[in-house]
Amino acid sequence: MNRFFSETVKSLTPYVPGEQPKDGRFIKLNTNENPYPPAPGVERVLRELPAEIVKLYPDPEAIALRSAIADFYGVDPAWVFAGNGSDEVLAFLFQAFFGREDRIAFPDITYSFYPVYAKLYSIPFVTVPLRDDWSIDFSGYPAGLKGIVLANPNAPTSVGLPSMAIEALLRERPDTLVAVDEAYADFGGESVIPLTARYENLIVVKTMSKSRSFAGLRVGYAIGNPGLIEGLVRVKDSFNSYPLDVVAQRAAAASFRDRDYFFSMRDKVIATRERFVVALRNDGIQVLDSKANFVFASMPGIPGGEVLVYLRERGILVRHFDKPRLDGWVRISMGTDADMEKVAFLLAEMVRQRDGRTAD
Amino acid sequence: MNRFFSETVKSLTPYVPGEQPKDGRFIKLNTNENPYPPAPGVERVLRELPAEIVKLYPDPEAIALRSAIADFYGVDPAWVFAGNGSDEVLAFLFQAFFGREDRIAFPDITYSFYPVYAKLYSIPFVTVPLRDDWSIDFSGYPAGLKGIVLANPNAPTSVGLPSMAIEALLRERPDTLVAVDEAYADFGGESVIPLTARYENLIVVKTMSKSRSFAGLRVGYAIGNPGLIEGLVRVKDSFNSYPLDVVAQRAAAASFRDRDYFFSMRDKVIATRERFVVALRNDGIQVLDSKANFVFASMPGIPGGEVLVYLRERGILVRHFDKPRLDGWVRISMGTDADMEKVAFLLAEMVRQRDGRTAD
Repeated sequence: MNRFFSETVKSLTPYVPGEQPKDGRFIKLNTNENPYPPAPGVERVLRELPAEIVKLYPDPEAIALRSAIADFYGVDPAWVFAGNGSDEVLAFLFQAFFGREDRIAFPDITYSFYPVYAKLYSIPFVTVPLRDDWSIDFSGYPAGLKGIVLANPNAPTSVGLPSMAIEALLRERPDTLVAVDEAYADFGGESVIPLTARYENLIVVKTMSKSRSFAGLRVGYAIGNPGLIEGLVRVKDSFNSYPLDVVAQRAAAASFRDRDYFFSMRDKVIATRERFVVALRNDGIQVLDSKANFVFASMPGIPGGEVLVYLRERGILVRHFDKPRLDGWVRISMGTDADMEKVAFLLAEMVRQRDGRTAD
Repeated sequence: MNRFFSETVKSLTPYVPGEQPKDGRFIKLNTNENPYPPAPGVERVLRELPAEIVKLYPDPEAIALRSAIADFYGVDPAWVFAGNGSDEVLAFLFQAFFGREDRIAFPDITYSFYPVYAKLYSIPFVTVPLRDDWSIDFSGYPAGLKGIVLANPNAPTSVGLPSMAIEALLRERPDTLVAVDEAYADFGGESVIPLTARYENLIVVKTMSKSRSFAGLRVGYAIGNPGLIEGLVRVKDSFNSYPLDVVAQRAAAASFRDRDYFFSMRDKVIATRERFVVALRNDGIQVLDSKANFVFASMPGIPGGEVLVYLRERGILVRHFDKPRLDGWVRISMGTDADMEKVAFLLAEMVRQRDGRTAD
């Protein structure tokens, strides 16, 4: 380890994203990307944007983009913050609201970037186990927390929490900031964005990466009351005045203006997921009820790591998390119908092989 | 101030970037942008990039871009880090190497983002005054520093420091990490990139915003030994795995591959600057020797704030810093020859008006 590293950086364990293979040999179902292209307006931005504009700084406040997001949700642009992917927005959120003088909590099984942020910013945190049915047990959260961070639907389980449960939490803990990461909520989860108007202790983070096919252009956003949004702006303006480039800002605004495309692509992914879940369950594979663009599946008797290798050898990348309670599971992102038929076929074959082995 | 703000964020004074007017009425000479378009390869990337690629995450390691940068400088890609503008790279650098257990230093007059980073990350710092001739006085820096941060050429003065002075510093303080911000070095400053191979306590940060007309696409980079680069990677991977989007990565690589365009645009800006400096000095305006794409100018007897307002009323934006020793000065970015002729003409007129007033 380099002798110049700061104490914090010496002790970090960085987040490890899913593999991004450089060649196109694989069907990539490991990082929850969308199999469909972004809205046609994105292509138009790329084709028509005068290259000369690149010589000027982008709008540091991303006003046109924030207005397009605000229009989509029927809120005022002052309630919207935009950043370089929801990971950056989350990192800003941890800094804006939580410090070494505070204590925060999140589930033991959730997006594995949360403990990384907490360590990077020296924020004391506790993790609270999910129930056996994978749901979040708010009664297990200690009192006096400065913040609770949730992914809803949760990652990597895909399990959704009803808005009512979050509303009860907001009411019970008015001095705890509840940050709800809705990266996957567009695929059937219940969004708590409407509750931001009523609860000043609620902030919602979303990404364009999944439901808007925008992983490559890095746009995430947060919605909450302007007092909270100001906290994110203060961190941004102390870090990088211009986190969103001009192409990303314009392309993202174009995506938000095209409601029809968004809903039709989203519906396609949901329909594929529902068919896939039925196919897997018919083959005796355990699949959690998913509100996301991925499913969390387990083949009894076969470790998740083995499923990952088996599929990888057959040209399909999925994700496995080497963590207690998750050993038996793999997370499979939704591709096209053809992709998912192939996966379902291969998994069925794996089940038959296992049963053949058992019968020996 | 919102009650949920963290203690750090409550006490922050964010950086204030130069104004980015939404309309095109102004000649913008206030944020050191380049008046010429980026390399033609950037236009080709925008026109030809398949929009569908946006659905996939970009390369988190930006290998093609880092290789293009490495080729340009004749170093190995392992010596290069790329991030979302040099502001993000600097923010990562402060976190990677400096903590609340350390002490760092930088000049009292320099890029005003350095104290903002130090406060955001609770890094104790001292500032050391520039000499009366605006040069950096290393003898005034205390012993036992974990880091010294320099802009070379310095901002907003435009004054360059010879490599030899930095090399002496590196030798004298082997346990101090010296971070040299060469945002403006391409316009005639002496780069210390060649010294990175010999001094393990040196890291250099650069931006594409100025000399490569890339402000709108947000790409900065650092060059240093792989041990130091790893520190930046650890912070990046604990913050945002993918800070550079696919368009920025590809367009930036195209820019680095076009050496001829880079050198010819750079030479044009330098030639404009030299003509502009001569014109101003002929009119009795004080101008520091500039190694940057801007000049720092003072009209004796006229406060810099007045010069800013006078030019603004005539359609030209420049920058003034409301700080001790800088009151009498304005920073003027280099535009086209026509832009600068207009500015020189207006400033000459302002001088004549002042002399007329004095004669009354």
